[in-house]
Amino acid sequence: MIRIDGDQLTRELEALAGFSDAPAPAVTRVVFSETDAKARAWFKAQCAAAGLAVREDAVGNTFARYAGSDSSLPAVATGSHIDAIPHAGRYDGTVGVLGGLEAIRAIQRAGIRPRRSIELIQFTSEEPTRFGIGCLGSRLMCGSRDAKSGTSLKDKEDRTLDEVRAAAGFAGSLETVRLARGHYAAFLELHIEQGPLLERAGIPLGLVTAIAAPATMRVTIEGEGGHAGAVLMPDRRDAFLAAAEIALAVEAAAKGTGAIDSVGTCGLCDIFPGAVNSIPSRVRMDLDIRDIDEARREKMLEQIARASDEIAARRKVKITRETLNADPPCTCDTRALAALRGAAQKHDLKFQEMVSRAYHDSLFMSRIAPTAMVFIPCRGGVSHRPDEYASPEAIAQGALVLAEALAELAA
Amino acid sequence: MIRIDGDQLTRELEALAGFSDAPAPAVTRVVFSETDAKARAWFKAQCAAAGLAVREDAVGNTFARYAGSDSSLPAVATGSHIDAIPHAGRYDGTVGVLGGLEAIRAIQRAGIRPRRSIELIQFTSEEPTRFGIGCLGSRLMCGSRDAKSGTSLKDKEDRTLDEVRAAAGFAGSLETVRLARGHYAAFLELHIEQGPLLERAGIPLGLVTAIAAPATMRVTIEGEGGHAGAVLMPDRRDAFLAAAEIALAVEAAAKGTGAIDSVGTCGLCDIFPGAVNSIPSRVRMDLDIRDIDEARREKMLEQIARASDEIAARRKVKITRETLNADPPCTCDTRALAALRGAAQKHDLKFQEMVSRAYHDSLFMSRIAPTAMVFIPCRGGVSHRPDEYASPEAIAQGALVLAEALAELAA
Repeated sequence: MIRIDGDQLTRELEALAGFSDAPAPAVTRVVFSETDAKARAWFKAQCAAAGLAVREDAVGNTFARYAGSDSSLPAVATGSHIDAIPHAGRYDGTVGVLGGLEAIRAIQRAGIRPRRSIELIQFTSEEPTRFGIGCLGSRLMCGSRDAKSGTSLKDKEDRTLDEVRAAAGFAGSLETVRLARGHYAAFLELHIEQGPLLERAGIPLGLVTAIAAPATMRVTIEGEGGHAGAVLMPDRRDAFLAAAEIALAVEAAAKGTGAIDSVGTCGLCDIFPGAVNSIPSRVRMDLDIRDIDEARREKMLEQIARASDEIAARRKVKITRETLNADPPCTCDTRALAALRGAAQKHDLKFQEMVSRAYHDSLFMSRIAPTAMVFIPCRGGVSHRPDEYASPEAIAQGALVLAEALAELAA
Repeated sequence: MIRIDGDQLTRELEALAGFSDAPAPAVTRVVFSETDAKARAWFKAQCAAAGLAVREDAVGNTFARYAGSDSSLPAVATGSHIDAIPHAGRYDGTVGVLGGLEAIRAIQRAGIRPRRSIELIQFTSEEPTRFGIGCLGSRLMCGSRDAKSGTSLKDKEDRTLDEVRAAAGFAGSLETVRLARGHYAAFLELHIEQGPLLERAGIPLGLVTAIAAPATMRVTIEGEGGHAGAVLMPDRRDAFLAAAEIALAVEAAAKGTGAIDSVGTCGLCDIFPGAVNSIPSRVRMDLDIRDIDEARREKMLEQIARASDEIAARRKVKITRETLNADPPCTCDTRALAALRGAAQKHDLKFQEMVSRAYHDSLFMSRIAPTAMVFIPCRGGVSHRPDEYASPEAIAQGALVLAEALAELAA
């Protein structure tokens, strides 16, 4: 009989939240920061304490293995991430990592020795905070990015991924991160919903049938600076006013599709030189555009591009656009979903099928392994904020269903 | 016969530009930074080398005096500032300080011992970069701000003016900075135009008859954060989209007066938390609004306030507005202007009368002393940028007229 130790899981989530560069309850844990390194060391110690064999790859993806009886078979995997964007909460990603660890311990405690090994993965840099691109670890793992990323991806201080990972102790070619299709028999990810649907419906589990297609567009605007008092309005080429119009164009594009699943956000806008009495000469903004429907997502991107061309011409500024990522959506695997469904039914837990508008490492793992996700409710649908919250009961139920499904797929 | 040593003045401007926190040709010199301290020390040494008696007040305003024959009479003063906004140029303010120093040396070299003392003033924090308010030194000097500023003004790191000035070595009550009306017989300021009119007209001197009325409004917007993928568009209260609309409302207000002298700028916009996949929950923006006509400037502020109320209601965000400063315009003094006019005529230099849309320490000095300004052309009207430029000839002509007028007013 598989049983989850909810108290230990709660204590471990609490301990992990202590590794933060922001005052509690906020969590800031940027990939390859000193705080991230401390959190990684703590996590590896927890895995080792559970008797799991731990290895790390060249980009810092961490694998902790409970060996099955037949080492010739592909393993079943689960996992998520522990990095956190600035001033975020403590459940996004961590529930999937520590919930996965507790699921494996629960299988061990139940005396189950599966045929297939079960592997827990902690993916590097699921959040795009540092390098502008999300799911870095799983992208490299599935081959959607190659080793060139080591030099092409740079952080705000202009340090390359290769420099930063080397400083964090992760050497070796990024080529070695890639795993072949078939390397895993299945991949399951436990995650908080980051939306309000499960809570509103009073349902403890969401089985994710599809993940929305995300895209990130970086927009750079070059206008002309000058003194805020002396340069007359008709003579101005203000980069920030162009940025303001683009942000509103993003909103209009997302609202304009008529589909509830279309979203567009401008969360970053850096102004240069950034002084109250100086006309902005340059702006860099990052746009986040998503939809369940890839064609509709592409239409939004095209509409934003057209709007920015019009703004550039009218305001006499130079606008350059760079697509940092534009990924297709994924459909989850029928057999992996069936294992989760069976686990929920076994424990009489209600569930509903749903799509994920947030994207996850599962979006990329689905390219090399049969993949499915299970969501648990979070209070008010709130995420990426300090007040993000999932109850110990909800987390334990999610870990239980994950454990049952892993045991079933590994049997 | 008064003669300007243009070579020495050029060398001194070059030397002062070397005190910078940005790579040349850009100059960044924020008040009370280490670089500012080094520049101040260098400047005081130059004054001492010219035989001037140097004193500093509690906020770091620096006074260098060439003693006149009758110490019972109010002195004649000149001066400007040496602080520079991020990535600015090397002539804004510095031309008035080092040009004033050379003017005094030229009077000395001509063997003129005036009846009134001549005092060169280097004003603290003319730029609002650090404390959000411009002309800090001259505001305190004329009593438009009082000692409460020491605790009410804070920088980005939340350090008060009192803490920061104490760390820079300026102790004592801010009460002591204030000077009585009549303390100076006259005040003259030499400055680059920071606009294109003199260059376009091919005229070497501008006599400033009035200075436009500036205002700075700080706007804080509180919306609701969340995950950029998961929160649906109709559920959002995005603080940055409200900020974008306010920036465009500022432009509309400035363009809408129908007067060429109305300007409005949003040069600063800080987004929290500032992550590509996080909906902005809070924005702080600073607005800079100016006009020659104070009533028109007030109408712009009212129009922006109305627009922001409408935006707050429609977008369900909380918007708070704080007027950091809203100063009346000033009209320059007839006698001080006559001295500058006479000096230009004496040397056969063409001049035109003009208004200043940028504001200067003269705006505040005019409250306690008969005040006038003289402008010299700068290339393309460019200022607050690394490519700001005034020719050595233009600077020397400005310093010459300043010296003649100071000698005349001090005679």
